[in-house]
Amino acid sequence: MAKAPVLTPRDIDFPRWYQDLINKAELADNGPVRGTMVIRPYGYGLWERMQQEMDARIKEAGAQNAYFPLLIPQSYFTREAEHVEGFAPELAVVTHGGGKELEEPAVVRPTSEMIVNDYFSKWVQSYRDLPLLINQWANVVRWELRPRLFLRTTEFLWQEGHTAHATQDEARDFAAHIHRKVYEDFMVDVLAMDTVAGRKTVKERFAGAINTLTLEGMMGDGKALQMATSHELGQNFAKAFNTRYLSKEGKQELVWQTSWGSTTRMIGALVMTHGDDNGLRVPPRLAPVQAVVLAIKGDDAVLAKVREIGDRLAAAGVRVRVDDRTDTPFGRRAVDWELKGVPVRIEVGPRDLENNSAMLVRRIPGGKEPVALDALPGMLPAILEEDQALLLTQSRERRESRTVDVTTIEEAVEATAAGGWARIPWASLGEEGEVKLAEHAVTVRCLVAGDGSVPDTDDAPGNVAIVARAY
Amino acid sequence: MAKAPVLTPRDIDFPRWYQDLINKAELADNGPVRGTMVIRPYGYGLWERMQQEMDARIKEAGAQNAYFPLLIPQSYFTREAEHVEGFAPELAVVTHGGGKELEEPAVVRPTSEMIVNDYFSKWVQSYRDLPLLINQWANVVRWELRPRLFLRTTEFLWQEGHTAHATQDEARDFAAHIHRKVYEDFMVDVLAMDTVAGRKTVKERFAGAINTLTLEGMMGDGKALQMATSHELGQNFAKAFNTRYLSKEGKQELVWQTSWGSTTRMIGALVMTHGDDNGLRVPPRLAPVQAVVLAIKGDDAVLAKVREIGDRLAAAGVRVRVDDRTDTPFGRRAVDWELKGVPVRIEVGPRDLENNSAMLVRRIPGGKEPVALDALPGMLPAILEEDQALLLTQSRERRESRTVDVTTIEEAVEATAAGGWARIPWASLGEEGEVKLAEHAVTVRCLVAGDGSVPDTDDAPGNVAIVARAY
Repeated sequence: MAKAPVLTPRDIDFPRWYQDLINKAELADNGPVRGTMVIRPYGYGLWERMQQEMDARIKEAGAQNAYFPLLIPQSYFTREAEHVEGFAPELAVVTHGGGKELEEPAVVRPTSEMIVNDYFSKWVQSYRDLPLLINQWANVVRWELRPRLFLRTTEFLWQEGHTAHATQDEARDFAAHIHRKVYEDFMVDVLAMDTVAGRKTVKERFAGAINTLTLEGMMGDGKALQMATSHELGQNFAKAFNTRYLSKEGKQELVWQTSWGSTTRMIGALVMTHGDDNGLRVPPRLAPVQAVVLAIKGDDAVLAKVREIGDRLAAAGVRVRVDDRTDTPFGRRAVDWELKGVPVRIEVGPRDLENNSAMLVRRIPGGKEPVALDALPGMLPAILEEDQALLLTQSRERRESRTVDVTTIEEAVEATAAGGWARIPWASLGEEGEVKLAEHAVTVRCLVAGDGSVPDTDDAPGNVAIVARAY
Repeated sequence: MAKAPVLTPRDIDFPRWYQDLINKAELADNGPVRGTMVIRPYGYGLWERMQQEMDARIKEAGAQNAYFPLLIPQSYFTREAEHVEGFAPELAVVTHGGGKELEEPAVVRPTSEMIVNDYFSKWVQSYRDLPLLINQWANVVRWELRPRLFLRTTEFLWQEGHTAHATQDEARDFAAHIHRKVYEDFMVDVLAMDTVAGRKTVKERFAGAINTLTLEGMMGDGKALQMATSHELGQNFAKAFNTRYLSKEGKQELVWQTSWGSTTRMIGALVMTHGDDNGLRVPPRLAPVQAVVLAIKGDDAVLAKVREIGDRLAAAGVRVRVDDRTDTPFGRRAVDWELKGVPVRIEVGPRDLENNSAMLVRRIPGGKEPVALDALPGMLPAILEEDQALLLTQSRERRESRTVDVTTIEEAVEATAAGGWARIPWASLGEEGEVKLAEHAVTVRCLVAGDGSVPDTDDAPGNVAIVARAY
């Protein structure tokens, strides 16, 4: 008789599988205010590792962290017309503070362009103050009518970068650097996620930007997910806030700006990219716990041995946890670590002690084999790198095998309905075709150049639109 | 002719000196919504270092990080009577979301006991789930009528720990562990701040706690500042949220809880403890920049040399920055680093190159001397540790020299008005005396036992009250 599945299988109901996994792997719970979430310790551990890796790359790019207020006067939101139109329907508004109605309501930040630019206009005086490269890690609130944990939540955590430059070229280069050298590098190298780097169409651009660069990932069901975006803001906000600098030539000039963000949505992407019917599979370079050493039984010799193995693996640079909670049945703990997607389990019972061996269980390729304990610390780093590479390969193969080249809107709709992406020449789609696709809940995820690079304009010859259903 | 001071001298106007320093060292700005603040990159760099050091200690204590929602249904605040009474006057309330009035208003969290306990009651089922040790790094909002940057702000950043235990003893021990081994260890060892560890009187306790442990620091003007608190919550919140566990004996029992927090206020404390009339002095173990290497002039040989020194110091494990912004006058940059309190400046000009030497300027003890460049990487670690120790000694000497033993309320008021602390037997002060002190804006900062330890009860024989004016 087959074992009852722990999760709803993906083939039967992908959204339900996702909810089951988030719940049973203890990643997050729904919050009491609609659309909010509680990120549980294991889910937050994934986010902490994402923060560490991203923060290092952001600092390497020259940006410094700072912190701007959560509450923004409502009047600020009228300053940049497109921006306010984009965000108005999603705002949460504080009308009372300290027991009184406020003279001016305050908006809980949905993003910080408005308040950051208020300060940039004070801090930037001369060309010596440029480039000004700022990042913040913060929570934001955008009222969400159809919430889904990690993917669409009323409150989410993110980093948002905001920069000011002397020239348009510098701003453009910096937005591109963040796009490829920070975001894409992180996603490919750490998250083991194959992504497509491209530019958004005018319709899909960030409200207030002159260009939005994006990374799009294909999820396990063939839908697309926008992983992170980097925007050229041109001088739109500089004009709204009169952010000027004295040039070397002694002239007052408006700055050129960028902004860029990535969010806790990446945790949802991780689940939907690498998860299988047994749970999550965490790429080893990201994993807060790369290996767990389990005591099968609670006798003293076994407990001493698992602790010793834990110490030896930690000394070898492996992020390891010892599971000696032998008052919980071993089978339940094994299933739990499988759900949580820890790359390697090392299981130790009384009989293993005699042989000085342990059972090595690999979550990512699957399979188990007995290994000599003395060999373990030397073996693990290579195993973890092998598993990291396998996840990236699987992600790439999925995208390649489920993307088709098409020439008509009908073919594009058909391909995406079957659970995949379509590539269609932008010249034959165009903005009118984009509107037609929307009627089928299909969107242009991004434009890429014929050679796969990121095009400089929407209408460059040979541009191809990647179209898909999306989260 | 004396140089005009960069800051208002402390002796002339301490609060104005504080504001000047925060502003000129570029630590923070006032936000547009009253009482909020923008933490600028240099100020945020201090906070990031505080977070790193604290987070390591919190994890060492066994707690895991998680994240709870910013928005809490207003009705939750009625569940614990004392707690709601304590926080009601400070709440910020969201009444509109997504363009509509909300059915139930949501409170922007002033602290998270209410929402954390809602989930603890779901997550805790059996004794196997205990202790449950959670921490979160987050922003909170408490409407502030008399704001002062870092010290009292409507929004601030903090960590808040929340734990649940099987027994009262375990909860008490954990609250004490956080108090001494996390908070006090961090403050003494990293912030180089002498603090007094004690318990709060009933009047000064956290709303909803059965015991509040505190660390109190003496600022440069002799006033006290509460640095961090750790609370035993007893079963107050467990009762309000019906948080029970199945004991080993098969009985349903209420959990025992703690909560504990420390905030961006510590940045204000750092300024007021170690700052002098020339600016901040940052303890080397905390300092995001321990040494700055300045190019006095912009010729190629000097620029190459400062970069080389920077690389060598970084290789020696020093957190170093190279200042090669020679389009800004050297004098202005030197004053700026002095204001920012970077412990060591290494100044290199064309003449230094000939001698293969540099000028070493020490911010903490003061003074400058030429040093051989080759000796520098070897010298610096010992110099930084010496400066770290000096700051702690100065902080301790200030507290000791400005604390007096008194026996009457009149003497206590006199001592605190003169800019210091008074120690008075709790038996001769009592709750009535505490009320009288309040008429003079003097508060009992904490109770300590006769031998300097933290007493187990307010009324233990020999308890001494530390009384002071406070921030």
